[in-house]
Amino acid sequence: MAKSKFEYVRDFEADDTCLPHCWVVVRLDGRNFHRFAEKHSFAKPNDSRALQLMTKCAQTVMEELEDIVIAYGQSDEYSFVFRRKSNWFKRRASKFMTLVASQFASSYVFYWRDYFADQPLLYPPGFDGRVVLYPSNQTLKDYLSWRQADCHINNLYNTVFWALIQQSGLTPVQAQERLKVDEVRTQEVRLPAEMEGERMTVTRTRARPVPLYCDLIGDAFWKEHPDILSGDN
Amino acid sequence: MAKSKFEYVRDFEADDTCLPHCWVVVRLDGRNFHRFAEKHSFAKPNDSRALQLMTKCAQTVMEELEDIVIAYGQSDEYSFVFRRKSNWFKRRASKFMTLVASQFASSYVFYWRDYFADQPLLYPPGFDGRVVLYPSNQTLKDYLSWRQADCHINNLYNTVFWALIQQSGLTPVQAQERLKVDEVRTQEVRLPAEMEGERMTVTRTRARPVPLYCDLIGDAFWKEHPDILSGDN
Amino acid sequence: MAKSKFEYVRDFEADDTCLPHCWVVVRLDGRNFHRFAEKHSFAKPNDSRALQLMTKCAQTVMEELEDIVIAYGQSDEYSFVFRRKSNWFKRRASKFMTLVASQFASSYVFYWRDYFADQPLLYPPGFDGRVVLYPSNQTLKDYLSWRQADCHINNLYNTVFWALIQQSGLTPVQAQERLKVDEVRTQEVRLPAEMEGERMTVTRTRARPVPLYCDLIGDAFWKEHPDILSGDN
Amino acid sequence: MAKSKFEYVRDFEADDTCLPHCWVVVRLDGRNFHRFAEKHSFAKPNDSRALQLMTKCAQTVMEELEDIVIAYGQSDEYSFVFRRKSNWFKRRASKFMTLVASQFASSYVFYWRDYFADQPLLYPPGFDGRVVLYPSNQTLKDYLSWRQADCHINNLYNTVFWALIQQSGLTPVQAQERLKVDEVRTQEVRLPAEMEGERMTVTRTRARPVPLYCDLIGDAFWKEHPDILSGDN
Repeated sequence: MAKSKFEYVRDFEADDTCLPHCWVVVRLDGRNFHRFAEKHSFAKPNDSRALQLMTKCAQTVMEELEDIVIAYGQSDEYSFVFRRKSNWFKRRASKFMTLVASQFASSYVFYWRDYFADQPLLYPPGFDGRVVLYPSNQTLKDYLSWRQADCHINNLYNTVFWALIQQSGLTPVQAQERLKVDEVRTQEVRLPAEMEGERMTVTRTRARPVPLYCDLIGDAFWKEHPDILSGDN
Repeated sequence: MAKSKFEYVRDFEADDTCLPHCWVVVRLDGRNFHRFAEKHSFAKPNDSRALQLMTKCAQTVMEELEDIVIAYGQSDEYSFVFRRKSNWFKRRASKFMTLVASQFASSYVFYWRDYFADQPLLYPPGFDGRVVLYPSNQTLKDYLSWRQADCHINNLYNTVFWALIQQSGLTPVQAQERLKVDEVRTQEVRLPAEMEGERMTVTRTRARPVPLYCDLIGDAFWKEHPDILSGDN
Repeated sequence: MAKSKFEYVRDFEADDTCLPHCWVVVRLDGRNFHRFAEKHSFAKPNDSRALQLMTKCAQTVMEELEDIVIAYGQSDEYSFVFRRKSNWFKRRASKFMTLVASQFASSYVFYWRDYFADQPLLYPPGFDGRVVLYPSNQTLKDYLSWRQADCHINNLYNTVFWALIQQSGLTPVQAQERLKVDEVRTQEVRLPAEMEGERMTVTRTRARPVPLYCDLIGDAFWKEHPDILSGDN
Repeated sequence: MAKSKFEYVRDFEADDTCLPHCWVVVRLDGRNFHRFAEKHSFAKPNDSRALQLMTKCAQTVMEELEDIVIAYGQSDEYSFVFRRKSNWFKRRASKFMTLVASQFASSYVFYWRDYFADQPLLYPPGFDGRVVLYPSNQTLKDYLSWRQADCHINNLYNTVFWALIQQSGLTPVQAQERLKVDEVRTQEVRLPAEMEGERMTVTRTRARPVPLYCDLIGDAFWKEHPDILSGDN
């Protein structure tokens, strides 16, 4: 169709192609989810409805978008890994991150009622995202281990913090003080078995993304699912 | 809190700060909206419910996010302009584009029922986004003029295309053929007055973003709203 | 000619186009010039042979490369400004900076003997470079003013520092101590007239680059040479 | 020392850190070397003095700069490979490419007379450079193979082209026509043994860079020099 004399402004668009043969990771974080959780009366330390909704959104993202081989989430964040040799949208970073962010956000509102039957959604939430490249399998595994170790540390802290408040009757300030003293010891504590469910991974088994609750830091997971890292070769 | 040995993977995050003193534009486009419009029975050539919903989402984005001075939309796309000297999130391009995309997308689902009372939303839509920098007032105005000229050209074409089908009984293929012949002539036709409403601008008057339906290509708009471009000086 | 199966590695080259309509500045700095000056017995605080050689190199760069409208140097650094709308090598940042750096460096060795008749060049020096974009005339002028103010401050300091050593017989450590105490007062001192020559600007008058020794911070220079900034309009 | 009010312009410098754990390759090309070769009467198809000077410059670059593990050159180009985990100048791409380009260019003039005793250097040459990242050993080896295959193809063509002119008395246009017809056949021809020397590699054996004339495409070289790729692990 006809072009206008203003067409020259297209030249200002920068090329943001991701380096080939690198794993492309998009990580999302809920915007102001501390406030969002309060307004919507999320249970403490973890609200299982909210976690399940996050995982439902991640599944939708994996079904709607192409070339995502694994996703991992905790709390109000989720990471999506595109396969090394993906050429989706010519590997443009902006396409990867905005399509993940917008699809996740629209799904969050769309599926809200399936998980929060008694709690109406008060306003539409936002999520920020970024793209990070990892050039090798080892760095990608270390990225996922970083997020899962972070999840573990936060969960331990929050579990004890809220137990001190809900079961031992401490104030939040007292609980915080107590945990400062015990920090080293706390880190040695193992997460109780019933908390394992707080770690959410979505991976593809055959065609469909399937949620899993498992350890990503050790080797076992990667040996059981060799196709996640080797699919491109 | 404690750090894991995997922390080093943070160094792989690239810095994507936008050049200072440039206008930052985020443009969104609906993903596969041709299919989305069909599935949700959008009126042709323009569905006023859909256009009003888009503008409602743009207003929400402007209310929720900081430093947006003007937004302009047409069809399934919307552009948002952040002020030249915005330092929101340290001007990180990824923050700008993912927060706009996710807030817009969640608002689209959240406000759907206010505009489509009789048409349920069948699935959550996606939007892709990008950041473009404009170093001067002239290039920014030319960017907005580019989008509005594009809107005008598309609207002219679509209006005549659908009139040939709906009123003259041509098939889509016949209408397309007919418009090829007449393309030059069609471009000289002025858009009918009742179509002015299809051009959507949202700008801030005092504190609140207000929708306007007006011409951005001429000088009149910019003379009436000098604060849009000069707010930073 | 024939292509090999290894050709795919070209796709790993990133696009580094400079944003259009911005001033492109390349700044060079001598690598380890403190040592270089000592090995080649440069006079202190300023060696006029070395400064003249720097300016000769800058002239050569401006004659050999395209679209440079002004250059400014001091000590072992030099800045080159390409015109806003230059499309030289499609505005690729890597081309701008490596061609300036290599042409400057080869000229430095080539013309050495014209300025250092009695002092042989002991080894080939290196220069590092970078590209910085400035979106407006004001920011470009402020960039040049930043370098010239820096030159002024350094020259003041060095002039007094070496006078304390060469004329008053202090040791370097004593001179440094003394200047700490007097720092504020020193900054109020005007640079003596005979030092004006240490500020080096090369600009184009008609076709040929011409060295000038003048003030860039005030308005006078820019009023006398309106074509430097307006050549593109 | 004191800061001026112009200091803010530093914020316009973009961060250009290279992705960690990737091989950083800087490739240089002579600027207008076709003309340079003519003006300095280079022998055709290959001038061994010019090739030896190029390799001397590459050695100098490897001695002066840090973390270069291998270099490979042909004709008027040279590639330098920095080790995967180099943190030289915080991995800033602009530092890598301008320091290589300027050191190479100043060395070219500095060592000219050692190779061209009878041919004075008429003017200082320029070299353009670029940085390319390779995320794996395989892609790095394919990059070097790409350059060496290119060298082989060009050498074959040029050898036959100049033989047709110098030995068979064809004009350049006739030689070009003849080679078009025979292109496929020519590619099957092996490069004569005496041309092997035209492929230049500089690699580190123990502390010092050493020139080698060998094949990089096969496995033998990499098996003999396992430390080049594995030094970082």
